[in-house]
Amino acid sequence: MLAVCAIALVIAFISSTLVLAKSPALPSWNDTATTTAIEDFVTRITTEGGPDFVPVVDRIAVFDMDGTLIVEKPMPAALAPIVDGIKAAVAKDPSIAERSTIAAFLKGDRQALAAAGEAGMVELISTAIAGRTLDEAAADLGNELRSADGKLAGVKPYQPMLELIDYLEANGFTVWICSGSPLLFTRSFSEQAFGIPVERVMGTTLVTKFTERDGRSQLVVGDSIDHINDKEGKPPTINQAIGKRPLLVGGNVLSGGDIAMMRYSRDRDGPSLQLLINHDDAAREFAYAEPDNFSLGAAEKYGFHVVSMKDDWATVFAP
Amino acid sequence: MLAVCAIALVIAFISSTLVLAKSPALPSWNDTATTTAIEDFVTRITTEGGPDFVPVVDRIAVFDMDGTLIVEKPMPAALAPIVDGIKAAVAKDPSIAERSTIAAFLKGDRQALAAAGEAGMVELISTAIAGRTLDEAAADLGNELRSADGKLAGVKPYQPMLELIDYLEANGFTVWICSGSPLLFTRSFSEQAFGIPVERVMGTTLVTKFTERDGRSQLVVGDSIDHINDKEGKPPTINQAIGKRPLLVGGNVLSGGDIAMMRYSRDRDGPSLQLLINHDDAAREFAYAEPDNFSLGAAEKYGFHVVSMKDDWATVFAP
Repeated sequence: MLAVCAIALVIAFISSTLVLAKSPALPSWNDTATTTAIEDFVTRITTEGGPDFVPVVDRIAVFDMDGTLIVEKPMPAALAPIVDGIKAAVAKDPSIAERSTIAAFLKGDRQALAAAGEAGMVELISTAIAGRTLDEAAADLGNELRSADGKLAGVKPYQPMLELIDYLEANGFTVWICSGSPLLFTRSFSEQAFGIPVERVMGTTLVTKFTERDGRSQLVVGDSIDHINDKEGKPPTINQAIGKRPLLVGGNVLSGGDIAMMRYSRDRDGPSLQLLINHDDAAREFAYAEPDNFSLGAAEKYGFHVVSMKDDWATVFAP
Repeated sequence: MLAVCAIALVIAFISSTLVLAKSPALPSWNDTATTTAIEDFVTRITTEGGPDFVPVVDRIAVFDMDGTLIVEKPMPAALAPIVDGIKAAVAKDPSIAERSTIAAFLKGDRQALAAAGEAGMVELISTAIAGRTLDEAAADLGNELRSADGKLAGVKPYQPMLELIDYLEANGFTVWICSGSPLLFTRSFSEQAFGIPVERVMGTTLVTKFTERDGRSQLVVGDSIDHINDKEGKPPTINQAIGKRPLLVGGNVLSGGDIAMMRYSRDRDGPSLQLLINHDDAAREFAYAEPDNFSLGAAEKYGFHVVSMKDDWATVFAP
């Protein structure tokens, strides 16, 4: 019996070792069908003379951010640094506190905030910074998101996705972010967190107005939304910023927000790859699903690859 | 007397040679104060350890297109390839021909078209392509702008500006276009004409809508304007695309359309340079001025460098 147990243990150890065998480029990814699909795709599109070769200028990868590159539960990172701005706005004009989203925010009512969705988040951000110059707002956001030693606080990237970005860049890809979070917010840390420069960030935008203050030209943030960068709003933003259909798009399961841009990538002429991250790892992150399974259904219909955080990722966060 | 004449001729020859002495990087520019100012600026911002050194990531140059990089008189290049589209739209719906801008266009009434301005041009473009997919419209534009051998027709770049772009890129600049012309139009030749890739083009945008046609996801061009990229509309576009104030901006005298983005550049923290091209060369191009001299007045007020096509450019067009 002991011998049988020992053999079983050895087999379990070998098979777990096999499952965990790591790719040199993607050490935090398990050796699964998904990881193989990613590596095969990159090999195919970089093989000169091969049928699926894609020139460097068209190697464009676009990633959603919240829930795809960083944790978005229990609350999107964008909410953390705006508390002071909201409180200052309410101090100036107490009637602001009566708006439903602001009230939910001040009460810490997460359920009501979740129900307010992206539009609610944008209302919070615009309340916190409306009337300020873009330069000031950007500088303050940068400070609020960093501790005294310059480290980013409140932004928790997934280690496998950081490796994937590096791997794609090493293979000639240009990597962009296309997020529902406000553009100004994401730009305040994209370079530090992901090595993605501000000009390769797309996001939700508030109206800004060119004006002069104290003898200096300024863009002043308005209190209305220019574009909500979610769902069917993402492909037009990608077209405006990049002018091409992406070769690779990564998004995640939460509200179906990334399906349109994944379809836009899939329907390019030539090869493409779409990765849909499924939050199925309650032990190491959070497990959440869509009530209607819209994104997973779309993945099956359109042939997107589903990345299981539980099965495909050996490590979720950097130690 | 003959001797005096000969001496005068020799002096005239020497001084004209002196004026025409050419910079190795900018052979089509005369050796004038303007050319020296450009070269001095580039030397200062690239001198490591110097007081005006600017890191490569912030070396951003933004140029207007029509009248700055290419000829915009007698008519902007964007108008040439849309004749067929307009005629097709009118054939389908004759009432379209009654709209004032369309009527002026069909009659060849240049004065009325000029009065309709950028908004009129956008109306023409949207009439020509509304309802079509972006992919189709882009492919057709690309074909219409090229002759059978692939050469660009109807787009006439200024040789000194092509040299300036090369010179800036050789000094670590990233060069962008910020034009009032429709984004789709400018992108159809920016790489071929200027070596500027599509993702570094900003322009006037029409609303596009994500939808499905024949089983394939598409962006379809609407008949309404999303953003007119002119005057005070240019700095918000620059912020959305680049996220930084440009180090160098080039624009031209015509309607004051580039002054806002030149001020936006001038008011960055640290050094900057603005170039305002003055169309004062009736012999080699076209001479035109603003009735109110708005742009030249702004140049004086804000310290922009005025580029005289007549005096500063040795060559206007490539032979």
